[in-house]
Amino acid sequence: MRQSQLFGKTRKDISQDEKSINAELLTKAGFIEKQMAGVYNYLPLGLRTYRKIENIIREEINAIGGQEMLMPVLQAKELWQITGRWQEMEPIMYQFTDHHGSAIGLGTTHEEVVVDIVKKHLNSYKDLPLYLYQIQTKFRDEKRAKSGLLRGREFGMKDLYSFHQDEKDLEEYYQRARRAYLKIFERLGLEAFSVEASGGAISRKISHEFMVQTEAGEDNTILCAACGWAQNKEIAKVKAGAKCPSCGKVLREAKTVEAGNIFNLGTEYSKKIGLRFIAKDGQQKDVVMGCYGIGLGRAMGTIVETSHDADGIIWTKTTTPYHVHLLNLSKNVKTGEQVYDKLTKAGWEVLYDDRDISFGKKLKDADLIGICYQLIISDRKEELELVSRRDHKKKLLNYDQVVKELERFYA
Amino acid sequence: MRQSQLFGKTRKDISQDEKSINAELLTKAGFIEKQMAGVYNYLPLGLRTYRKIENIIREEINAIGGQEMLMPVLQAKELWQITGRWQEMEPIMYQFTDHHGSAIGLGTTHEEVVVDIVKKHLNSYKDLPLYLYQIQTKFRDEKRAKSGLLRGREFGMKDLYSFHQDEKDLEEYYQRARRAYLKIFERLGLEAFSVEASGGAISRKISHEFMVQTEAGEDNTILCAACGWAQNKEIAKVKAGAKCPSCGKVLREAKTVEAGNIFNLGTEYSKKIGLRFIAKDGQQKDVVMGCYGIGLGRAMGTIVETSHDADGIIWTKTTTPYHVHLLNLSKNVKTGEQVYDKLTKAGWEVLYDDRDISFGKKLKDADLIGICYQLIISDRKEELELVSRRDHKKKLLNYDQVVKELERFYA
Repeated sequence: MRQSQLFGKTRKDISQDEKSINAELLTKAGFIEKQMAGVYNYLPLGLRTYRKIENIIREEINAIGGQEMLMPVLQAKELWQITGRWQEMEPIMYQFTDHHGSAIGLGTTHEEVVVDIVKKHLNSYKDLPLYLYQIQTKFRDEKRAKSGLLRGREFGMKDLYSFHQDEKDLEEYYQRARRAYLKIFERLGLEAFSVEASGGAISRKISHEFMVQTEAGEDNTILCAACGWAQNKEIAKVKAGAKCPSCGKVLREAKTVEAGNIFNLGTEYSKKIGLRFIAKDGQQKDVVMGCYGIGLGRAMGTIVETSHDADGIIWTKTTTPYHVHLLNLSKNVKTGEQVYDKLTKAGWEVLYDDRDISFGKKLKDADLIGICYQLIISDRKEELELVSRRDHKKKLLNYDQVVKELERFYA
Repeated sequence: MRQSQLFGKTRKDISQDEKSINAELLTKAGFIEKQMAGVYNYLPLGLRTYRKIENIIREEINAIGGQEMLMPVLQAKELWQITGRWQEMEPIMYQFTDHHGSAIGLGTTHEEVVVDIVKKHLNSYKDLPLYLYQIQTKFRDEKRAKSGLLRGREFGMKDLYSFHQDEKDLEEYYQRARRAYLKIFERLGLEAFSVEASGGAISRKISHEFMVQTEAGEDNTILCAACGWAQNKEIAKVKAGAKCPSCGKVLREAKTVEAGNIFNLGTEYSKKIGLRFIAKDGQQKDVVMGCYGIGLGRAMGTIVETSHDADGIIWTKTTTPYHVHLLNLSKNVKTGEQVYDKLTKAGWEVLYDDRDISFGKKLKDADLIGICYQLIISDRKEELELVSRRDHKKKLLNYDQVVKELERFYA
């Protein structure tokens, strides 16, 4: 992509009400544009990173048997009344009456909808287990929406729902999903750890949260640096400074972002909505369920919070919007065009800064945007200069060596 | 995919209030599931076809320079008041007040939002022309939502917006977009023709609709079978039975579905929202705009309306959820597994009916689902039977011949 044609300019000054680092950097770098509190537009650069996150999640959920579907935003009051959540969720749910007098809510989560659909298609134990997921837009009327992409009023989410014959089968899948989650965060370049937590409004049974340490986090986790023991502060019976119940070392408390969560729902929803199956012994039984969520925008915001410096964003290798940021600082436009052509034809994703602006401005923008590698063509040197965005280390290389370095890094 | 594991069963009886052929067949075949009037879930089979439609549209819009972004559903009243459409769109727009007292509408279209964003990133004529699009979910509180996927209250749409220095540049792009639209419909397997139409609430300037003939259509088009002349009945000054103003032959009237539309917006939105640019001569000028929409679910519904028979759906080659429906009617499970394995490894998309049900039921389901080819393994014949869903013509072939036939068809 030629940067002269890319929609979304970098800029120095943005709205004063963006208090979070992720929204500030992503807006300055031209990835997102705020619509209103907690509601963002993804500009072309931003959508590229967003889709990469989406695809990693999709791959890993497909790998644990997930079947993708797509459920709606508009949901009828009647369905949510069955579980008692129309009233319970009212403080954070957008609820209104349409022109026909029907009460409608915008989906905050999809347990009611998915159970209602599965009910129509599930008969016997032969149809179980079943793993359904979607990547879809959710809505929550958050009181505080000042954390940029970390806490949105409108946000993309992957939500997976699993259906089982019994608690044992669920438990096995729950652990598989937990491992898949750790793999997803690892691939995204996020150091996440799972902590036991309460289920909140979604479930009263066991649940786990996947936490990433960052000062931008709104959660507090009591954790042991020595053995990895961790619990959400809200349910932990020990405090920071106390001894770890597992290894005896001193516990500390960390600010964390909840990057994902998994819930054992038991038969709560199946019982209420009447989702039953005929077991092997001919008896009707309630389906046992789990649910598993990851916010896409939140993952993107968390990467920025945990990976940036004073100059801008530092993308991880799987989430960088392009593989290489090609900067032609030479007056000789031809060389730039040639390298751009060659790299692109070889399948590399290249953002080519072909703009007629100053040397310094190009370098500044490249650091702000945060593509993993900058490739600089200058008049002073014959060779290309490959710069790692993370540590600004430079290497003078010929074209083939550049490709080798990229292959090694993105392998 | 093994059909025994695929979520979404075929069924004979569905809700009596599904009056449209597309919703009836798609529901019976397990592609969609109604949530409420005009709101549908896409089950795994349905989402596959939906994504294929999405990708064809994306490819062709990228080919005419479109840059993909993603805009939000939630939109502030203030923005829509600037153009006067908060009030004008009220009859079909979901509008409500959030917990903080702010008035919010669910996006029916995105002119206001996109112009507001572009305003922040556009300075001079050097930034023009610009083509931005998204594939996103829209909402309209339709009075009649009885046409299945043809008229949804919640529906996926590709909306493209173009920005130009002057009317001449817009006109050129408008024609490019028109050709791209005809190509999209051709690739989808829809016979669409463009007709001149009024702009309705979106624009008072010129616009074109892309019509597909079907009894399910809610539009009426006056057309000339001889020369292709066509106009929307609402704006046509001639009636069916009159002489064609172009060639003199007798005009007729046809029921049509509007599968897409393109609008010349002129400077209407730029003027109201203040989207200006500095022209070459240093003067400030209003940006000239066009907008271009295609509904994804509507395209899917239209294909079903125009391509089905008494037994079920007949997908077109680009929208078939799988390339081959493999039916093992033999007791010898091994052969089925081998063919499934071989085809899948060769990159073919195969739905393999491995269910332990009767011969007749498998054939019936395959016809209902409508995958372009059925590949039957039976005990009676050594060779494989390749059946074209469209005309039920059968060929006895060996494996290599089957692959050749598929390659020829899907080329």
